Formats: sequence, C-alpha cells, structure tokens
Amino acid sequence: MFLDASGSAPMTNRTLEAFQAGLADGWADPARLHTESRRARQLLDASREAIAEALGARPEHTHLAHSPHAGIERVTAGIFAARRGRDRIVASAVERDAMMHAAHHVAGGTLTVVPVDARGHVDLDSLATELAVPDVALAAVQHANHEIGTVQRLDRVAEVAAAAKVPLVVDATASIGHGPAPQHWDALVANPADWGGPAGLGIVALRPQTRWLPAWPEGDDWAPGGVLVPAVLAAAVALQERREVLDETSLRLHRMIARVRDAAASWPGVDVVGDPDERLPHVLTFSCLYVDGEALLTRLDREGVAVGSGSACTTSTLEPSRVLAAVGALSHGNVRLGLHPGVTDADIDRLLDLLPRVIADLRDEAGAPEIA
Amino acid sequence: MFLDASGSAPMTNRTLEAFQAGLADGWADPARLHTESRRARQLLDASREAIAEALGARPEHTHLAHSPHAGIERVTAGIFAARRGRDRIVASAVERDAMMHAAHHVAGGTLTVVPVDARGHVDLDSLATELAVPDVALAAVQHANHEIGTVQRLDRVAEVAAAAKVPLVVDATASIGHGPAPQHWDALVANPADWGGPAGLGIVALRPQTRWLPAWPEGDDWAPGGVLVPAVLAAAVALQERREVLDETSLRLHRMIARVRDAAASWPGVDVVGDPDERLPHVLTFSCLYVDGEALLTRLDREGVAVGSGSACTTSTLEPSRVLAAVGALSHGNVRLGLHPGVTDADIDRLLDLLPRVIADLRDEAGAPEIA
Repeated sequence: MFLDASGSAPMTNRTLEAFQAGLADGWADPARLHTESRRARQLLDASREAIAEALGARPEHTHLAHSPHAGIERVTAGIFAARRGRDRIVASAVERDAMMHAAHHVAGGTLTVVPVDARGHVDLDSLATELAVPDVALAAVQHANHEIGTVQRLDRVAEVAAAAKVPLVVDATASIGHGPAPQHWDALVANPADWGGPAGLGIVALRPQTRWLPAWPEGDDWAPGGVLVPAVLAAAVALQERREVLDETSLRLHRMIARVRDAAASWPGVDVVGDPDERLPHVLTFSCLYVDGEALLTRLDREGVAVGSGSACTTSTLEPSRVLAAVGALSHGNVRLGLHPGVTDADIDRLLDLLPRVIADLRDEAGAPEIA
Repeated sequence: MFLDASGSAPMTNRTLEAFQAGLADGWADPARLHTESRRARQLLDASREAIAEALGARPEHTHLAHSPHAGIERVTAGIFAARRGRDRIVASAVERDAMMHAAHHVAGGTLTVVPVDARGHVDLDSLATELAVPDVALAAVQHANHEIGTVQRLDRVAEVAAAAKVPLVVDATASIGHGPAPQHWDALVANPADWGGPAGLGIVALRPQTRWLPAWPEGDDWAPGGVLVPAVLAAAVALQERREVLDETSLRLHRMIARVRDAAASWPGVDVVGDPDERLPHVLTFSCLYVDGEALLTRLDREGVAVGSGSACTTSTLEPSRVLAAVGALSHGNVRLGLHPGVTDADIDRLLDLLPRVIADLRDEAGAPEIA
C-alpha cells in the first residue's frame, strides 16, 4: 500500500512502455545532425508539445530542466536578472524549500515572506502591501501546497501581482496532473515525478511576454548538458494518461481524502491541517499529539503501508515542517498521505482501521498522558 | 551504422534490462523513509559504489550530478569557492565548452588559457608558469579530448599542479569506459552517456583532501531535486559491461581507428588530427579541404552512416571548432568518428569505401580546385 504519492508515484504500465520505447528510439543526443539524433529530437519536441498543451503554455516557451529544483533555480535567477535594479523577492510562507533556497540565493537578505492564514491561504492584503514597494523583482506563490494540499486563489493573487506589475512565479509542482492546471501565472514550474512520470526532470513554462535572462552562458540554459529524452516521453505519456480520467480520478480521490479527514478529525489529539474544500484531491496531512513522526512511519511501514511525514522536502531529515509552523499546526508527529490513482476504497478501509491503533500503541509505549 | 559514439552511444541489451529493472524497483524517492524508498536508496548506493570503484574513487566522495555539464559547473564553482582569495582559473586550450563556460562564469575575466602543441598536448612549461602565480584557484586539464582523441600526460600535469599546490580538475567525460581511468586528479568528472549509459547524468569524484564548498544552499548540492535512480543503475551496469572486455575492445577499436587514420591521411586534401598513439582508442577527427561539414554529414546520413562533425559540443550549430583551431588544424569540413564496441571491421570497410567517393562528389559539386 503506497500512500506517499506526492512528489513521486509508481509508474503505470503505459508510462513504463513509453519509457522503454523511448530508450529504443530516443537514446541519441538530440542536438546532432544524423537520423538517430533527429528521431530523438522529434520525440523530445513532441513530448514537450504535449506537456505544454496540458499546462496551457506555448511549446516554444516550455523548457525542460534537470529537476523541479533546477527549474525553480533557473527561472527565479533568470527573472531576477531580467528585472535589473529590483532586488527583492516576495514569497508566501508556504513555498517549497527549493523556492525559498532559490529566492534566498539570488536575493540574499531581501527575501520577504508573506504570511498565510490558518488554512494556508496567502494573506492578500499583506501581499499587496509588500508588492507595492517598487524594488520587487518577482513574487512566488505556489498553486497548491505539497504538504497540506491547500490550493491558492491564484486569480486574486495574480490580480495583486499585475496591479503592482510584478511577475508571478507559480510553483505548480504539487498540482499538475491532479486537477485543472492553473491559469494565472507569468512563470510556471511543474514536476513530472509528481504525476507518475520519472524523477530527474522539471518543467518551466513562461508567458511570451515574461522577461528572463540566462544565468548561465550556454546554449541550453535550462538543462545544460541535456536531458534524458525517453524520460521526457514517459513524462508526457504519464500526464496524458492522468488527464484522460482527470475529473473521475480527482473526484474519487477527493472523496477518499474526505473520509480520512473526517475520521482523523474525530480521533483524540489529532490535528487535521489545510483547507477542507479548496485543496488537492489526493493530499492530506494531520499531526498526532504525543507521537513521534519517525516511529509512526516505521510502524506503518512494517505493516506494509508507506506514508510521508513532516515537510515533503525534508522527510529524510525529519526537521519540523516550516509549512505546518506557518499555518500554526503541530509540526511534530505528522503523517502526510498522497494517493495515486490506483489506490482503492479497501486501502482506505485498512488505513482507517490501522491508524488509530498504531497511534494509541505508540502513545502507550511513550507513556503519553490521557487526552481529554 | 552509428559511428558517432562520442558523448552518446546505443545502449546494450544488458544496460536496457538494468534500466527496466531499475524502473520497477527504484522508482521511489530515495530520500524518504519507507520500504519503497529504502529499495531505491540501496540501488542508488550500490550503483554509485560500482561507479566509484571503476573511477578509483571513494564512494562517499563520488557524487551524482544532473549532467556532465552540471557536474563541471558544480565542481568548478565549489572548488573555486573553497579557495577563497584566489580568483584565477587556468585551463588548457582544448577543454570542453562546458568547462570553459563554467570557468568563465565563476572566474570572469581571469580565466587563463594554456596552449597545446600540434598534437593537442598541453604545454607543460606554460602551465608551470601560469600556475606559479599565487592567485590560481584551480587548474582544468582534461584526460582525453572528445574531438581529436589526444590523451594528456596527466602524471606530468599533476606534478606541475602539485608543485604549485593548485587543485587539478580533470574532465574525463570522453575517456572513462574506453581505457584505464586516470590516476592523477584532485577532482574528476565523468559522463555515463559516453560509455553507453543514459544521458542526463554526470559523475563527480573528489579526493578526500580536496576542499569544496557548496555553491547552492541545499541538502544535495550536486543534484538538487535528485536524480533518476534507474538511470544511475543503468550507468553502473553499462560501465561494468565495458570494463569486463576493456582491454580487448580497446585494442580492437584502436586498430580500426588506425586503419581509418592511415587511409584518410592518404586522401588528397585531408588533414588527420591528434596524436596517433597517445589517444582514445575509438575517436578520430579529420578535416577535408573544400568540403562543407554539414553537406558531408548529410550525405553520409543518407547512406545510413551517422558520424559527428566539428566540435562535439557545437555540432548542432556547426560553429568552427575551438579545439581544431587550438591544434592549428583546418576547422571546417571535418568528420568526427566515435566507434562503440559493436562496430565491426565490415563497417570500417564500408566507411573507407564510401568516404573518398562522397568527399570527391562534394568537391565536384562545389567546383573545388584540383588538389595537388
């Protein structure tokens, strides 16, 4: 039972077959001149076009990067460089670590963080105030949060950014393939591994009018040295497969998460996080008082159930989640679920049977006080 | 007939099978805590260990980057940052564009280029003179050239660098998998796609004593956002497969290239480049007077023969090769061969039959003057 499909998901047979076809036909360097390379280039171009279409972007303004992190790095540095003379980045408090690191790297001490409310929505008044200062190079507001699932009201965020004439960089690495693509952005970043494609790829889309300067003096500024063409083909096919049944899958997973949300909210000492309605269909985080996150994960893993924990980006270090802190939630003892389309109601039944018992056991073992 | 196996090569069945096994077992994010991730992490660690062993490096100092370019970028910037107060990079004139771009990016106007002789060997006296100045952050001298095949005398280069106490960065992206790994380096970069592994990966090895500072403030500084684990497994298996028959393959390809060298040297108006003996076994470049490089490639491609042209890095733009200019060779109308282990003597027979005719035809069509 793999319930950690956020940032990674098992590949379907169709995606695996596309990958294998790509390895056979698209192994050559697409930058060269002979037939083998032309075939690789055609696969690459067709795959990029398919992904661009799904993002609502133009193929010629849709770029491949070496990872979502690399995409965020390049797009942030590149827009920052094009906005010469403006040296501040304004970012929501729930942006991914990769975005915070990129912003800090290029803007240094002039990174301004805008708070979110208890459900994780960015404070639009604060955003407007920060963007009104004329030294802002760009604003970074994600489409949806990879931990708590909250979907931002990007139409209103974009209005605020447009009024201030500040380019809006939208991290959509948690949302593409799980619901409608966002419409309001000047630059967009997406993560194929999050929609069941391979790791080691990032997608960056720009609007035709978005100004960007290369931070690195090479021909292919988005992925110097090139990408693995078969992986791009697999990414395109995985996204296509998701889109064919997007409404149905999204509705089904939304209901499953609602079941877990309702159940978890009724368990003593469990804090369910994020917006119950304006959210990703497949993601849920909740925190358990007096429970150690790592112990919970390990116990569930022993039962054959894989879940995520803490910040999706820092699971391995088990640091307290910055996102959970930003919404004022308990930032320890948390479980993050990410449902892929293959998850069944029976899986959720088993999870709902297992979880309260495991939580109670761990509290017993730790000698936790009774929860009223 | 694919004779452009330099920087890319068709994957063998064994490598493809490893890739597919990796996709089945190693799709999960290796940074997480559950069984699926542990399996991916084990595959990743075992693959990295195998590659490190082949490079003569320690696994804990062997890093995965998103491409050879990204590896060169990170290692150059990182060693430069660790050598604070020294702001010059000294590089041989035949370094790859990626190295020149990285050096220029981090060192700006203080990049110093050391000339090479007519066969492509770096001038050791000039190198010593440049490294004697105390402001040098690092020296970049490749192991073997990706265009003309010349193998540097790294033992002597390393002596010079060590005498000046300057760290030596060795670009081995054209040589690993084709002969013995170089022994003299402080940092080493390798390219799995060059030895029949997948594109979109770079390997960087450091000596334990080599000082390096992260240029990017994230956990995994070498490949932020991670790499595709199945690709790393395929890279390790491809390298292992090459090494099992390295001496035999290397000898066989060395003889094939010697045949083409001798033949091409006898054709009128053809200039064979590089060292005839101290060279990669599988690479050869020659230039043809009064012939357009792109036309030659296209004509050969129509005959079902894929070859490379110009600078291996700028084939797509058909710019004159900086490497050929550095050795004083004709930098237009050139053909670059890269033989993979599957190439047969019959392939070479056909090439040697075809090439002089195609060159003569193109000269006729262009109305080129008679060559004495």
